[in-house]
Amino acid sequence: MLRSVIRPGVYYDSVVLMRVQRSLAALPDVLDAGVVMATPANREILAAGSLLPEDLANSRADDLLIVIRAASAAAAEYALSQLDELLRARRTASAESYRPHALTTAIGELPDARWVMISVPGEHAAALARQALDEGKNVFLYSDNVTLTEELELKQLAGERGLLMMGPDCGTAILSGVGFGFANRVRRGGIGLIGASGTGLQAIASRIHELGGGLSHALGTGGRDLHQEIGGLTALAALDLLSRDEETRVIVLVSKPPAPGIATRVLAAARRTGKPVVVHFLGQPRPERRVGTLHFATSLAEAAEIAAGLAEQTEPAGASFAKSSPGALLRGLFSGGTLAAEALLGLRVFLRTIASNVGHDASYRDTSQNGHRLLDLGDDEFTVGRPHPMIDLTLLRERIRAAATESSVGVVLLDVVLGDGAHADPASELAPEIAAGKALAASQGRALEVVVIVIGTEGDPQDLARQVAELGGSGATVVRSVGEAIERVTAVLAVPTGERSGRPVPIEALRPPVAVINVGLESFHDSLVAQGAATLQMDWKPPAGGNRRLTEILAKMGAPRR
Amino acid sequence: MLRSVIRPGVYYDSVVLMRVQRSLAALPDVLDAGVVMATPANREILAAGSLLPEDLANSRADDLLIVIRAASAAAAEYALSQLDELLRARRTASAESYRPHALTTAIGELPDARWVMISVPGEHAAALARQALDEGKNVFLYSDNVTLTEELELKQLAGERGLLMMGPDCGTAILSGVGFGFANRVRRGGIGLIGASGTGLQAIASRIHELGGGLSHALGTGGRDLHQEIGGLTALAALDLLSRDEETRVIVLVSKPPAPGIATRVLAAARRTGKPVVVHFLGQPRPERRVGTLHFATSLAEAAEIAAGLAEQTEPAGASFAKSSPGALLRGLFSGGTLAAEALLGLRVFLRTIASNVGHDASYRDTSQNGHRLLDLGDDEFTVGRPHPMIDLTLLRERIRAAATESSVGVVLLDVVLGDGAHADPASELAPEIAAGKALAASQGRALEVVVIVIGTEGDPQDLARQVAELGGSGATVVRSVGEAIERVTAVLAVPTGERSGRPVPIEALRPPVAVINVGLESFHDSLVAQGAATLQMDWKPPAGGNRRLTEILAKMGAPRR
Repeated sequence: MLRSVIRPGVYYDSVVLMRVQRSLAALPDVLDAGVVMATPANREILAAGSLLPEDLANSRADDLLIVIRAASAAAAEYALSQLDELLRARRTASAESYRPHALTTAIGELPDARWVMISVPGEHAAALARQALDEGKNVFLYSDNVTLTEELELKQLAGERGLLMMGPDCGTAILSGVGFGFANRVRRGGIGLIGASGTGLQAIASRIHELGGGLSHALGTGGRDLHQEIGGLTALAALDLLSRDEETRVIVLVSKPPAPGIATRVLAAARRTGKPVVVHFLGQPRPERRVGTLHFATSLAEAAEIAAGLAEQTEPAGASFAKSSPGALLRGLFSGGTLAAEALLGLRVFLRTIASNVGHDASYRDTSQNGHRLLDLGDDEFTVGRPHPMIDLTLLRERIRAAATESSVGVVLLDVVLGDGAHADPASELAPEIAAGKALAASQGRALEVVVIVIGTEGDPQDLARQVAELGGSGATVVRSVGEAIERVTAVLAVPTGERSGRPVPIEALRPPVAVINVGLESFHDSLVAQGAATLQMDWKPPAGGNRRLTEILAKMGAPRR
Repeated sequence: MLRSVIRPGVYYDSVVLMRVQRSLAALPDVLDAGVVMATPANREILAAGSLLPEDLANSRADDLLIVIRAASAAAAEYALSQLDELLRARRTASAESYRPHALTTAIGELPDARWVMISVPGEHAAALARQALDEGKNVFLYSDNVTLTEELELKQLAGERGLLMMGPDCGTAILSGVGFGFANRVRRGGIGLIGASGTGLQAIASRIHELGGGLSHALGTGGRDLHQEIGGLTALAALDLLSRDEETRVIVLVSKPPAPGIATRVLAAARRTGKPVVVHFLGQPRPERRVGTLHFATSLAEAAEIAAGLAEQTEPAGASFAKSSPGALLRGLFSGGTLAAEALLGLRVFLRTIASNVGHDASYRDTSQNGHRLLDLGDDEFTVGRPHPMIDLTLLRERIRAAATESSVGVVLLDVVLGDGAHADPASELAPEIAAGKALAASQGRALEVVVIVIGTEGDPQDLARQVAELGGSGATVVRSVGEAIERVTAVLAVPTGERSGRPVPIEALRPPVAVINVGLESFHDSLVAQGAATLQMDWKPPAGGNRRLTEILAKMGAPRR
């Protein structure tokens, strides 16, 4: 016995409908019930459950469908008769209060609200968010299915106005202890989170709490913020905001791997905060465990643990950033393939494009572009008919000399591998070459930094201490691992300044009292109420009764953008 | 004033030639000198230095070229007159001893030699290595420019004979304290290294020494061992060997990222050793910091530090490996996209192929293949017109039920994210579903493991402790991070057994006294002598005077393979 009702052009949020559906299904002799907006996906699900009568097959996405399968016609009729009351009774205690239909009215009702939280269907979300930004409100945009073009427009508008635009598809945020969307109850403390992904932030927040740590704020950016097209606009604004927030002593930045140029920019901004920043780019190999003030994590749990550890340290991180020589270039000259690969991997994140012969990459042959270069001189092509560069330093010396004459080169990075089988005294050949190169550069008024990674033990026949002393005596910076070399190289070489183009977001955006206008899922309103936040639920309906063509016509008449 | 001599068909190793060239260049009034085999690359270098007379432009790769640029004809003539003496005087004290020309003779001279070290030019290296294996000797093959086909043949032959085949392009090894090729002097201890790349092993070995740790052995595999074509034959043999070596308590495995199937096989073998293994696949994201006995590192320095730390622990690792249910499948059902991504990343290394909708991967739609599957149910496609799966558990419950009916499914993995905004009591819906699924499987005589990652805090409205208790009460294994889930899932699910096809290499291959027959670079012989190892230098000449066509004819007549 299947009975159905169609209500064109009405809107209830999906959580409300889920609850009504469950109430109907629980009525006596009702076998199954469906209460859904008639999107193609939902019609498919109804059909799979044998809950889609023929005459409803052509309903439209903005129609509300109610279908009852019951043991008897009477039971089905009774269930349908309860529908309106259930829809009306959907609300909690707060339901009886006045609910404005327009955003401007809502703002008038709750003028302290610095935030508008939006969770209406994606096709309507961007217009609402634009309106909120135009009214000078920061936006938490939970809705997904918003286009990339709309996202960019919204974030650019936010930048012009000095507002924070979290989302679209932003699942979570915590501002001064108040959770937006999905959020865990965590203690307050000195760790600020920035994350694209909702559950990533939630996992880190929960773990920090478990470890005894606490959060200042957690800011969401939406899953596509670090895409090339968006350019990390919200992440950069959030980093800037947390850098100015006195409560925040440690920052955690979690995201899927960003577009390469964006990663470079965001990491430069992270270093510029002067605060320790734990970075977790999920699925991207870590450049090193630590580079300057940046700490790289492998998993959500590890990101939390590193942050909790850093927050306990009393000593401030110190702004380790960058005596930068704008535009200066790197020449990496390696005899060890694995050392070259580790250096390339670590530096690429910071310097972006490095031409190299490591990893089947012939880009280093492209001499038309005068950029950073890193060569493995032990590669097959260099060793046919001549000894390995760990034995024969001729090639290395020639290239050090060549690099020193290039006015654009700021750093020469090389490795010296000691031990049996290797050159008996590499420093005797390299130190004079390095000293001459530095002298040449100095005579031309340039600074040339030479970083040497020395691998070996004090038992090696070359005398490790003497090698280090002689290389150091030539003016080179001697380090003992690739990680230290990366730290040194990135501290010297110019990193894109990545200045934000947008106006800074006033720090008050994060401060209590947190007041929010909620448009969309009533359950989010309920949880704000439960947390004691000032909040106002808007009674939103799709414009023009959900008629998309009419909506577009209204939009062209200039209605929404005011 | 340019003078030159050509000596067709003679062979000296490249280190010897480098030394002679330097001696000539240091003679009075000599401006520059070139002493090289006439490979195209070397001719190019001579030409670049204006050291290639017209009449030598057509010399052949197996010709020795000697070119002198001097201030006067007399000086040039004098330099050339010194050539023979310099070539003769190239050797150290050991030079006067008898040097066999054939490998069989050399073996007769040093019958204790378990190793043959080969560093002749690549085109001749494979034939020599084959001969050594045929004679029952383990091989250290330093030469590069050996083809992939030759490498596979050699490693298969080694497998048949129960011999270890290190290389080609193997730069380093340490056997019971004796360094082969390039090697650092490090203290002896409980850490065994296996590495593709020479300097990678050297950097780790040196750092372990610096940290106060020591090495049992270091085994090289060559840079291509973990390629699909080679299948990790040497790495698997080395793991097997070190698993039986009592001195080795901790193993370090370092390599460029292996082919996916090979990684799975090698990691399964690493776990089967029962010893803690530190894994560093350079440039590949770590699955987690630790999975069972496997510890994953990010950098060479970190690999060394983890290994040194493990070696200090008195407690043995314990064989944590695998109640495996051969062929059982995974169903991952996530509401959190980031949690899904971290799980996918971590599990993929161990389970190889997992169909998923995470990361723009539509492979999960391919239902023709019944393999592992991992879904993010919070993805846009599942949330149009219905609440997020953190609110509405219907989809999750349906899929748990479906998985329980599939006889091939061994593990269901899901996340439960608590907090404001989420379902008020997820355990109340999930625990009965899980219990029913397990009961159904049990009634069919199957084991169904359900692993639940619970994210939340004790302050969350759902009551964390009660959620964990109820989910645990349903028979599910409750964990608190993705890392723990990966550990549990990989411990339950069948991992390819990866049994080696080759015969085990007798442990004596590693034991002192280390005796070596050296064919090629005399400097390697010198360093073996300096280390006090028993060694014999062979006086190798290219077959048929370096005439390649004649060599091939001889090979076809069956000469080398005996």
